[in-house]
Order: sequence, then C-alpha cells, then structure tokens
Amino acid sequence: MQGCLGELTRELCAVGADFHRRGWVLATAGNFSAVLGRQPYRLLITASGRHKGRLAPGDFLTLDEHGRPVEPGPDRPSAETALHLMLTARPGVGAVLHTHSVWATVLSERFSGEGGLWLGGYEMLKAFDGVTTHEQRVWVPIFDNTQDIPTLAAEVARAFAAPRPPHCGFLIRQHGLYAWGRDLAEASRHIEAFEFLFEVIGRR
Amino acid sequence: MQGCLGELTRELCAVGADFHRRGWVLATAGNFSAVLGRQPYRLLITASGRHKGRLAPGDFLTLDEHGRPVEPGPDRPSAETALHLMLTARPGVGAVLHTHSVWATVLSERFSGEGGLWLGGYEMLKAFDGVTTHEQRVWVPIFDNTQDIPTLAAEVARAFAAPRPPHCGFLIRQHGLYAWGRDLAEASRHIEAFEFLFEVIGRR
Amino acid sequence: MQGCLGELTRELCAVGADFHRRGWVLATAGNFSAVLGRQPYRLLITASGRHKGRLAPGDFLTLDEHGRPVEPGPDRPSAETALHLMLTARPGVGAVLHTHSVWATVLSERFSGEGGLWLGGYEMLKAFDGVTTHEQRVWVPIFDNTQDIPTLAAEVARAFAAPRPPHCGFLIRQHGLYAWGRDLAEASRHIEAFEFLFEVIGRR
Amino acid sequence: MQGCLGELTRELCAVGADFHRRGWVLATAGNFSAVLGRQPYRLLITASGRHKGRLAPGDFLTLDEHGRPVEPGPDRPSAETALHLMLTARPGVGAVLHTHSVWATVLSERFSGEGGLWLGGYEMLKAFDGVTTHEQRVWVPIFDNTQDIPTLAAEVARAFAAPRPPHCGFLIRQHGLYAWGRDLAEASRHIEAFEFLFEVIGRR
Repeated sequence: MQGCLGELTRELCAVGADFHRRGWVLATAGNFSAVLGRQPYRLLITASGRHKGRLAPGDFLTLDEHGRPVEPGPDRPSAETALHLMLTARPGVGAVLHTHSVWATVLSERFSGEGGLWLGGYEMLKAFDGVTTHEQRVWVPIFDNTQDIPTLAAEVARAFAAPRPPHCGFLIRQHGLYAWGRDLAEASRHIEAFEFLFEVIGRR
Repeated sequence: MQGCLGELTRELCAVGADFHRRGWVLATAGNFSAVLGRQPYRLLITASGRHKGRLAPGDFLTLDEHGRPVEPGPDRPSAETALHLMLTARPGVGAVLHTHSVWATVLSERFSGEGGLWLGGYEMLKAFDGVTTHEQRVWVPIFDNTQDIPTLAAEVARAFAAPRPPHCGFLIRQHGLYAWGRDLAEASRHIEAFEFLFEVIGRR
Repeated sequence: MQGCLGELTRELCAVGADFHRRGWVLATAGNFSAVLGRQPYRLLITASGRHKGRLAPGDFLTLDEHGRPVEPGPDRPSAETALHLMLTARPGVGAVLHTHSVWATVLSERFSGEGGLWLGGYEMLKAFDGVTTHEQRVWVPIFDNTQDIPTLAAEVARAFAAPRPPHCGFLIRQHGLYAWGRDLAEASRHIEAFEFLFEVIGRR
Repeated sequence: MQGCLGELTRELCAVGADFHRRGWVLATAGNFSAVLGRQPYRLLITASGRHKGRLAPGDFLTLDEHGRPVEPGPDRPSAETALHLMLTARPGVGAVLHTHSVWATVLSERFSGEGGLWLGGYEMLKAFDGVTTHEQRVWVPIFDNTQDIPTLAAEVARAFAAPRPPHCGFLIRQHGLYAWGRDLAEASRHIEAFEFLFEVIGRR
C-alpha cells in the first residue's frame, strides 16, 4: 500500500497540523484514516476526540475490516468509523479525510435544498483525480446530518449508484466535508481543492 | 488537578501563541487562568497587559481565593480577575479563557438586542461538554460591557440561575468571549468551537 | 531609551515577520522606525524597498535629526522618512510603524469623505495609551495620499493642533496606517488594536 | 543571471512554502520558473503536480529554449511551460510565478466581461516595476481559460502589442494569476502586490 505505519502516521500528523492551522479541524473536529494493508485489511485511524493540530503516534488506532481495534486498549475509534470503513472498501480508496471548515459548513446549508452543488468552470477542478479540463463538472452531494452513522454510511453507499454519484467527496449538512483518494497525498490534495472552491463560491 | 505549575504554564503559553496567531488576543487583549489546586485554592492567571503571543513564565501570577497574589511582586493580576474567580469557584471549572476575536465582537453587537444568541443545528456543537447531538441548542448570553468587573461578575453569576443559563461560555458586548472547561484542554476546545460557530454565523 | 541597537533591530525584525505573515506589509510595503537616542537624536529606520517578512540587520539605517544617514553607504532611507522624523520629534514618541493592510485600505476609502473615522464603544480601545474605558472615542484622521511626503508631514503636524487630533495613529487614503508609541512594544500594540478595530468595522 | 542553481532552488522552495501557507497554491496548483542562463538559455521550472508547500530540489526541472528537459528523467515539466517560455523570452523577464488564489479567481470572473481590470489610486501600485505614483493605472488583462496552452501563450504574446498591454501580470478566467519580474524577488513582490490589490477590490 502506501508505506509503513510510521511513515503514514507522520504524514497524518503533518496533515493534521496544517489543517488545524487553517481552521479546518478546530476543537478536535474531523477524523483521518489511511489503509495500511488489504490482506488482511488494516485501517489506521485517528482515535476519538484528539486535537488534530498536535497528533502523535498515540492518537491513532489500527482497525480490522469490522472496525475493531487490532490491539486492545483504552482508545475508541472515531464515532464516524463506519463511513471510513465503507469508503475504504471501495476500489482505489486508500485514504479518507474528514474536515469541518467554515466555508464547507456555510455551503452545506446554502445548497442543502438542492441536494448538493455542482463545481464547474474552474481550473482547480483538475486537482481532482480523473478531471482533465475545467469544463468538466463535479457533483458534491449534501447529506442530512445525523448521529446514526451506520445509516448515513448506507445512504452514502447508495449514492455511488445514483445518477449523480460523488466524485471524490461529499458534504454533510451543517457538519463538514469527506474526501478521499488512492493515497493520503491525493486525499489531502482533494481536500485542499474542495476547500478552495468552496471559498470561491462562498465569496463570489 | 491538572498537573504541575510548570506544565500548566507551558500549556497556557502555547494556547496564547496559537490564539494570537489567529488574531483572537491581539494587542495584549484577553486573559487566561487555570486552577492549580483547591485545598488551598490557587489560581494561575496571566498578569495584566502581557503580549499573549509570547507569554513566558514571568507573565503569570498565582492568586488565592480572594484574588490576592500568593507571592508579593510588582505585577498586577488581570483587571478581569473577579470573573475568573467567580467562574473557577463553580463546580467542574478548572480553566477560563477570555478572547477578543473579530467575529465574537461583530456578533456581540448584532445579537445584543436579543440578549444573546442560540447556537443550534451544527455538528461542531458536540465539541461542547455534555452536548451529544447537533440537535441540542446552546444559549450564549451577551452581557453589556462595563469597566466595573465585580458588578459584571455578579451579573454573570446570577445568569447561571436564569431560565437560559450559559452552557460553557458567554459574550460581552463589543468586547469578547469567556469560555471555560474542567481543564485547560477542554476550555481551549470550547473557545475553538465558539469561534468556529461565530464565524459560520457571521458569514452565513 | 529602549535598549541597544542590536536588541531594537531584533525586535523590529520580529515585528516585520509577524506583520508580513498577517498580510499587513506585503510586497515590501510599510516602514518601521525606533528612536535610539535623543542626545544626539538617532533614529533606526528600515532602508527603502526591503522585504518586511525577512528583515536582517543590514536592512536598517541610522539617521540624524535631518534624516541623513550617520554612516555613509549605498542604502537610502525610506521615502517616508519625513513622517517618521516629524512623529518621533513629538514628546513621548519612541517608535513609528507604518503598515498597509487590506482593511485599513478599504476603510481609508470608505470614510475619506468624512475626513476620518471615530472608533468608539469597543473594549479593544483600552489598548491605546491613555484610554481607560470603552466609552472613550478615538478619532482616526484620513489624509489624502501624495508622493510629496514633506508636505504630507507638515499637514499631519498641523492636525495635532486641530479640534480632532490623531490619538496614536492616522490613515492615508488608499495607502495605509501610521501608528506610534513611546516604545516599539506600544507602537506594535497600537497597530494590532487599530487593525483589529478596522476589521470589525469592515465586517460589521 | 540571478545566482546559482542551488540558491534559486532554495528561494523557489521558500516562495512555495509562503504562498501555500497563504492559500495561493493549494492542491498542487500553480507553477514557478526562473531563468538560470541565457547563453545557452536555461529555465528552472517546477515539475508537474508537485505540492508547492514542500518543494524540494527533486521537484524542479531544467529546460532548454524549446521546453525540453536538459537531462533525461521521469518528470514532466508543468503543463503550462509554453507560457513560461514565452514570458521569459521577453526582455527583462527573469522569473515567472503562477498562483491560484481565491480573490484572483473571484475577480477573474467578476471582470471577465470587461476583458480585464484597472488597478488605480492605490499606493501599493508602487510595488510594480516602473510605477512611481499611486496615480498611475495598471491594466490587468483577463484571458479565457483553455487547456490549449500554446494557443493561450500566443494570445498573451499578442496582448503585449495591444493598446492596453499587461504591465507585469495577467489573469486567466476562473484559473489564476501570472506575474513576472526581472528576478525572483521582483516577481514575488509583484504577486504579493497583485494579491493585496485583488483582495482590496474584492472586499471594497
């Protein structure tokens, strides 16, 4: 997969420090995961409630395909583990990043009546995997927020078969952004591109 | 309590550097405190007029339950000590952080006619102690600004018995935010959550 | 005065790095000065056209009371030296900082028809020397921009005798902010307070 | 020219880190180049798709006057190489920086119907090479976005002979800013001045 446990942990810590500085994961919001292996499936994920600006190796758990910690310990995986498991079970998804930015939150309210928003016309769209021209449009579905994460995960899973599936991210209303990529670098690039485009649309 | 004097001082210095970078405690605004002990009561608090972006151990005082410095010296405690004493005398309050951000100031004006503002519907509310769903609402009272801090402290104290008591923070009109928690990490998380939500509401 | 040449230089470099990070002195804009001595008068000032985010000792000049470099060299003092000389000749002015922020520029346009703007009602006003309550108002005059700095300096000098004199700063239209203090720490605190208040008024 | 390969590389890495922190080159957007020599022509340029916030020497290529890498290797030059070659072939252009900021993107949409925007009246204009007073106006043409970079490069080249030629930068609609200078320091100063002015106009 993407490199050893230590390297992935270091990269996730660096992502957390940068995103916290930008105000995208304040107040312990957000959670991050990366696939360590497929045979057997192993997912490295942030433990619940950690400060994303100063993550350390002790702030992560390794889970199996059922979301159970591989090693016993006091930490709980993030409450939103079911979403990470569902997304990383899809082909070509090696990392999932979830952020709570101001602009994502504002747009998730403004466009929730339409079920999502189209991103189109911007050169920045080429940062998304598979997009080769600014003329291609990307649909960002918006799901209602709920504390019932398994149900939300099932709803998101169904959206991949819908007429307008998510490309590499979606919003949860008044909550934030989920984005993913084949590895952590791509997932992080997708987050930056979404956040840039949300701010452009918010200020326009 | 929360650890030794040196450790708490270091954490408060780090909080100050981060908040100053974000523009929440510019121009020596704001003040921070943390309870060092209960038997006897000892409060570590920033001295008056210090630059919050480069706090050092010499920028703090230790006070007794009457707000008097435990050791004699030239520094005065912050003018707003009475608020810190009142809040940390309440059960479960181990740290109090006071910030002056742009969005807190803007919202404290916009909503002052209503006596406060409701925060509701946002996932970020779960960062507040005791909030388990975005459907729970949190009331943020807004008090008129005054230079008579003991009177303000008494008014805030009464608000805890009012029909809509403060949850873990309040605003002072055209002044800023007070938030608290059982320890410094929780108080800091509460500040980040309030500031995030104020910016969302301000931009929405 | 305020300490030795090396110490003042280091502090000015730190101010420059922080202000550049905040976007207040982009593109080599702005200039800073601090009085080194009064008998004889010596002014430490940034050389013209330097990057304020990475100032080094070689980016400063020492001037006499006529604005002439004390030591010959290739560097020119800032084009706006006449303003620094006039301001530091006033009693109790030991440092002058000039910044170009977005909000100062926006407000200098919005309020230029009124000749200035009142700052009133905000707790942050207490960061200004001599202000003890948020109920005190501070007048910020706005002068028209010109490339004739000696004439502008004379106009500003006359404003100190006008019915609404500058308190510890003024704006130049579509240009930026000048603020001062008895030493560098106070001048820097005044800049931060002005910038905070400008952003509040701009967003309100 | 501007110094040795190692020095230029280090400076470009520093520019990238600063611009990424400011949100001007998120998600691997943007590209940077600097002329290493004229006899023969050698251009140092960022390889395609690199993270601009953590550039390292391995993220650059050296090209000849036809845009071909001087040394064979797996990296491709940036897709927008044709623009860098055209611009650095002009007299007095030693460095070209391309950024994607939120405000540049917003203004490139807002003013595209007028073919560009005038920047006038601001002191910050003096940061542009050859501008000596805020009363001088600078025209910033806006070109339609396209994935056909050679055609765009030819269109920009023709604009230099038009009645309102670009001064030291232009916008591409819904894409971003190109700016240049005789060396990297000047090109970087021009970017900062444009970005400042775009934000002022955007917020005004």
